[in-house]
Amino acid sequence: MRKRVTIRDVADRAEVGVGTVSRVLNGHPKVSDNTRQRIKSVIADLDYHPHFAARHMRTANSQTFGFITDQIATTPYAVKLIQGAQDAAFQNDMLLLIINTEGNPALEADAVKLMLERHVEGIIFATMYPRIVTLPPAIHQLPAVLLDCMVADGALPSVVPDEYGGGYLATRTLIENGHERIAFINLHQESLAAKGRLRGYRAALRDHGLSNGDRYLRQGTDWADSGYQQAYDLMRLATPPTAIFCGTDRIAMGVYDALKEMNRRIPDDISVIGFDNQEIIAAYLRPPLSTMEVPFYMMGRFAIEYLLSGSDEKIQKQMACPFIERESVRTI
Amino acid sequence: MRKRVTIRDVADRAEVGVGTVSRVLNGHPKVSDNTRQRIKSVIADLDYHPHFAARHMRTANSQTFGFITDQIATTPYAVKLIQGAQDAAFQNDMLLLIINTEGNPALEADAVKLMLERHVEGIIFATMYPRIVTLPPAIHQLPAVLLDCMVADGALPSVVPDEYGGGYLATRTLIENGHERIAFINLHQESLAAKGRLRGYRAALRDHGLSNGDRYLRQGTDWADSGYQQAYDLMRLATPPTAIFCGTDRIAMGVYDALKEMNRRIPDDISVIGFDNQEIIAAYLRPPLSTMEVPFYMMGRFAIEYLLSGSDEKIQKQMACPFIERESVRTI
Repeated sequence: MRKRVTIRDVADRAEVGVGTVSRVLNGHPKVSDNTRQRIKSVIADLDYHPHFAARHMRTANSQTFGFITDQIATTPYAVKLIQGAQDAAFQNDMLLLIINTEGNPALEADAVKLMLERHVEGIIFATMYPRIVTLPPAIHQLPAVLLDCMVADGALPSVVPDEYGGGYLATRTLIENGHERIAFINLHQESLAAKGRLRGYRAALRDHGLSNGDRYLRQGTDWADSGYQQAYDLMRLATPPTAIFCGTDRIAMGVYDALKEMNRRIPDDISVIGFDNQEIIAAYLRPPLSTMEVPFYMMGRFAIEYLLSGSDEKIQKQMACPFIERESVRTI
Repeated sequence: MRKRVTIRDVADRAEVGVGTVSRVLNGHPKVSDNTRQRIKSVIADLDYHPHFAARHMRTANSQTFGFITDQIATTPYAVKLIQGAQDAAFQNDMLLLIINTEGNPALEADAVKLMLERHVEGIIFATMYPRIVTLPPAIHQLPAVLLDCMVADGALPSVVPDEYGGGYLATRTLIENGHERIAFINLHQESLAAKGRLRGYRAALRDHGLSNGDRYLRQGTDWADSGYQQAYDLMRLATPPTAIFCGTDRIAMGVYDALKEMNRRIPDDISVIGFDNQEIIAAYLRPPLSTMEVPFYMMGRFAIEYLLSGSDEKIQKQMACPFIERESVRTI
């Protein structure tokens, strides 16, 4: 029990030398069919798995990609990024070697070093919210792609969500449902996500002749409390909005609480759209929240498929954020 | 750019043969100090990383553990299991090779095979909710530990949450706060979690002389809707409960919505305890939800530390679920 089967075990059971087993494993012709069959059947019986690195050393073909993340912990998003990468890798007979650095630059350098030592065929560097990163120079020694982040000079390919497009589509969806007084409670303003979504919101209003000097724009944090506070503030205006676009689903969670306390019905009295499609929130709020999906799963797949393509192009891919319709938007 | 630095590059730059570089890498004495220094400085300049497998083949010491998960996707729990394992591994100079099988037994066998081929030093098999599993026999060829699952015959070590203890502690906490009519809305009853939590609920009531023939026991699903429905049902009783213990935080989310619609204040009119401590829900409900934590992070750490210990004991570890106090329980 709990003993790794070795080439010696196979040789002993088949009553041949280790060299003969090795020749069979390497497809060497100088073994009789009889012996070859006997050895193969022993290999199957014993469930023997020869050392991958020993067989593949010459090709330096590790069939492994490295996946470095900065902080897997703080958000459930990580799961879908990794799952998308995982699925695409496994479907192509590749494995992922995963290291989580918790955003520590020393660990990042270590992680790249460890990946190089293990001859990974490419590296994915993923952050858990979109941002500009600085990476250890050794990453340029092999194919690399950035997931949910970018380097300032565009010298590495990247895939990020189209935040602008998501902000635009959320706002346009409300406009198409007849809303003209549309509030936006944005997430913390330093993030690329906040900047892109805000540009999208303003552009959609402008394109439809509804610009209002940011009268209904409010600055939140990422969290429910800020949604709660800002919803009270917005609904006390002399001419309150008829729809609230929230920078995150968590903000929408706070907006729901405030609206319910004020006895405003969603969507009959006021429409709400979130952002992120965090199912655990969006699908289980009452009523279920219509929201914008961040395509984490597809981004993870894209990163792997880019590496598999062998492309040299420094692509800076932006993936669309689709509208997920549930029950919190009403046509007026 | 994007060219892996090889031993040949080092040799050329240092103006020595590849063999000399190899001797320096392997700490061979027959190299002059002068040459050794020159080669080491070239290695640093070029950022050269020798192939790990080539250096470690003889010891078969891959410094890697395999981490096989059944479904990383459907729950954010996965993140903390992996993070705990990740942190403990990295602190001990080990890496994790991660494969997600989506519960497909064929993929599970493949995953174990791939891990064996890569000479991982141990395997963690993790499921995303506690259950009994059947595993490919090859897993017995090396140290393995089960995370959030067990095999029926106990032939492999495992670490799972102490569901019974969590159910008991949640109920006892309410009793200690003066509650006597304590409802329990359980999650779907087939799961080990539901069975353990229910036994804990009943035992705590019994130990405190409060058994009531399951008068306040309700069967939910895992989801918010069932909490909503069952809370209405419970509050319409002639003698309604003064506290509701919910089998998941999602159930508590639905209970909150129902109680608010009925104008019952939490915790002034009724206390609520959840289970899971899914921060994204528990911390952002209004009022923040007191709940039982499932110690996923510590379970992930435990699995790695068990493998590192080299123990042969078929430990069946149950980790305590601590009470996380927020604002939804009131003393009466």
